[in-house]
Amino acid sequence: MTQADIGLVGLGVMGANLALNIADNGYKVAVFNRTAEGTQAFMEKAGHLKDMFIPCYSTEELVANIKAPRPIILMVPAGAPVDQQISVLKDHLKDGDILIDAGNSDFHDSNRRYKELADTPFTFVGMGVSGGAEGARFGPSIMVGASETAYARIEPILKAISAKHNDEPCVALMGPEGAGHFVKTLHNGIEYADMQMIAEVHEVMTSTLGLSIQEQAEIFSKWNEGPLASYLIEITANVMGVVDEESGKPILDVILDTAGQKGTGRWSAVEAHMLGVPATGIDAAVAARCLSSARELRQEIADIYPQSDAILTWEEKQEGIAACERALIAGKISAYAEGFAVLAAGGKENGWDLPMGDIARIWRQGCIIRSRFLDEIAQAYDENPELKSLYLAPAIIERMKDAVPGLRDVLSLCVTNGVPTPALSAALASFDMIRQKRTAAYVIQGQRDFFGQHGFERTDKEGSGFHGPWPAGGA
Amino acid sequence: MTQADIGLVGLGVMGANLALNIADNGYKVAVFNRTAEGTQAFMEKAGHLKDMFIPCYSTEELVANIKAPRPIILMVPAGAPVDQQISVLKDHLKDGDILIDAGNSDFHDSNRRYKELADTPFTFVGMGVSGGAEGARFGPSIMVGASETAYARIEPILKAISAKHNDEPCVALMGPEGAGHFVKTLHNGIEYADMQMIAEVHEVMTSTLGLSIQEQAEIFSKWNEGPLASYLIEITANVMGVVDEESGKPILDVILDTAGQKGTGRWSAVEAHMLGVPATGIDAAVAARCLSSARELRQEIADIYPQSDAILTWEEKQEGIAACERALIAGKISAYAEGFAVLAAGGKENGWDLPMGDIARIWRQGCIIRSRFLDEIAQAYDENPELKSLYLAPAIIERMKDAVPGLRDVLSLCVTNGVPTPALSAALASFDMIRQKRTAAYVIQGQRDFFGQHGFERTDKEGSGFHGPWPAGGA
Repeated sequence: MTQADIGLVGLGVMGANLALNIADNGYKVAVFNRTAEGTQAFMEKAGHLKDMFIPCYSTEELVANIKAPRPIILMVPAGAPVDQQISVLKDHLKDGDILIDAGNSDFHDSNRRYKELADTPFTFVGMGVSGGAEGARFGPSIMVGASETAYARIEPILKAISAKHNDEPCVALMGPEGAGHFVKTLHNGIEYADMQMIAEVHEVMTSTLGLSIQEQAEIFSKWNEGPLASYLIEITANVMGVVDEESGKPILDVILDTAGQKGTGRWSAVEAHMLGVPATGIDAAVAARCLSSARELRQEIADIYPQSDAILTWEEKQEGIAACERALIAGKISAYAEGFAVLAAGGKENGWDLPMGDIARIWRQGCIIRSRFLDEIAQAYDENPELKSLYLAPAIIERMKDAVPGLRDVLSLCVTNGVPTPALSAALASFDMIRQKRTAAYVIQGQRDFFGQHGFERTDKEGSGFHGPWPAGGA
Repeated sequence: MTQADIGLVGLGVMGANLALNIADNGYKVAVFNRTAEGTQAFMEKAGHLKDMFIPCYSTEELVANIKAPRPIILMVPAGAPVDQQISVLKDHLKDGDILIDAGNSDFHDSNRRYKELADTPFTFVGMGVSGGAEGARFGPSIMVGASETAYARIEPILKAISAKHNDEPCVALMGPEGAGHFVKTLHNGIEYADMQMIAEVHEVMTSTLGLSIQEQAEIFSKWNEGPLASYLIEITANVMGVVDEESGKPILDVILDTAGQKGTGRWSAVEAHMLGVPATGIDAAVAARCLSSARELRQEIADIYPQSDAILTWEEKQEGIAACERALIAGKISAYAEGFAVLAAGGKENGWDLPMGDIARIWRQGCIIRSRFLDEIAQAYDENPELKSLYLAPAIIERMKDAVPGLRDVLSLCVTNGVPTPALSAALASFDMIRQKRTAAYVIQGQRDFFGQHGFERTDKEGSGFHGPWPAGGA
């Protein structure tokens, strides 16, 4: 029996689909699962690809069945299970072997593992894989944190299994250490913001235009042909069009309004704060999911502060729908501008030279936030690799100038009528602040010097640590 | 020479002022500083209190000069210096001695130190002290993380030196471990939100009402007699009234608009995210400080997206000012509701039974966020110690119902005109969402199940893990 080209540990939905994807591309895979039943079940479902797999029931067997030097993908739950697998495998691995953590790991863990394993005979790679179960099976977007040598060795397989955008594989080396998982974390943060803004615009169209879910399914379909074209807009249209079999209602009418969240949205928000680079759209989206989960409390509070019946609205329905589309465009640009700023800051902080253009490029297909808009971002970085902010890219400037008035109209209506738009509001506030020559922060600096002698800089001369001539009572 | 009642290490501004405060209250203090010069300088400035201090120039001398069992306050920079001081002191301390870290420590560090030092002959106390230099000197608000035994021993001194509100000392035991520093962290987070909202309202009055800084000084003075009465409003009025000696302009006109930040605002935001309890007002305030610091980038972006010249405004100036006052009241209530929710969640997560009413009570004087409003919060918790949200307290309900329309008017004007109000916007969005019976999160749940088989709950039956009948392409 010929040996496998690659090993894969962990045959859950994502692992199994990734194994099938690899086999589809002509690579033989040695597969191993924590339970023998999992391996057997996988083999039974492998169908015509069966001969491309070597089922293994022990670590020894797994290692023995892969051609040296061995690449082995771990697709196990993030956290302790990854460390456990590494410690089990490491005594069996030899010079040149590559251990690839493809789970949703905290990039700090990947940084640590990369360093801890630096002097062992094998190499550690932290790899972010986006696209959900479907992406894993038919082509995900892949963000790799690896040494250049290790990346060169696994690149052919990764290019084969990744999504393609105009034949370009959606995989790239992000940098060493946890760079791949860091970029994946921000991808998910942006995904949170994107999804939340879509939910908000849906709510605006429901509350202020009285549009039904079915009508909105058509609107989202139409938006998917314009500048908003993206996987999330497309599936929103799909989801809105689906009828629940039991109740006969639109499925969205029977789904409970408590959004779950895994770690990565929150990690993005936390990381942005730690880097001192605001990601207010992500903050708001994570917060909105938390608030949605506080369902019982919301019922109590809603009884006390009821929504007003009279909702102001647009004079023309079409005008309102057009404003909503532009609101979503402007909100999305703001969320991406923030997300890319966090990426840049994180790359700098960690000493990685993150390839900003490549990030946009490999997100154009395969991942959840894939969209036409990412093409424009990729082009913006091609034209200017040193771009300081997405807001400064010519194509974005044009879109933003066109879209912001729509966001203003929508938000004005929402704040007046009590329609909650946390992420869209954060997006506009952040944009309006970053385009200010002089912010009101001088008030804060005055207060801080007054009570804490923190000192301030002056507008009219160089230097720092100036103090005000405060009256008695000031510190 | 009689021995000292207490020791104090670290004679920077805060440490020196705290030592003077302790001496003022009749306790003799053995003082020690990293540099002998610091100790000498302190003694030279001690004036009539000189005899209340024993200057010490070594750890041995410090320990020998305090009555056993010894309380020793550390007022050194947070982080490594605290650990260094503990390791230097610990070999000299004996049964019953108490080491009190009074710096702005990360409460996770206090948790760790409390546990690490649990089996040593002395006790560790993590103590949050608020009120800036002025508070330290004449009465701060003190949040203590300690065992009940240790707290009982140091309580008399702490009560003596703390601020008083109607003769009640502003000090209380928050719980064991890092409970004191946790509460102090959230205090500072709320302070960030409070300060940012004041800055925003100032900007609104400048942009939409054309009011000068001098006119606003009077308005803030007046507000300080109403429901907004607080230290921060008071000092804002003071700061606005101060004229720069060099330029002859209002001092605020010459202060650079880049706000500094220390760790605690950011820690609050991060902690809220980690607890899954949104603090969007704090998030926005921390983000606004970061954006204010990106001064050069802002200039570039501002050139591309200039502020419009035509600013809509209120028909009546007084109407506008009244709306601003109400906006600030509603925004502040939202920030406090979020902050207290994070406190409650943090207490639960860490197994502390945080005394919510006491927290409001000891913040009524001494600390930076002291205000009349905290009296109402304290009363709310007195009436109902199990209060699930500040929004549910009768006194708050009344204020909120009165104030929210003002916040809506202000924000409607701001989003239309491009005046950035990140914290006030976050406050309204968070309020509007928490008073929703059904949020738009069902859209997110639909999307997540579509692409990731995450499952959802249904509105019409019990259970979880339901899936939609998605068309091909759905996962």
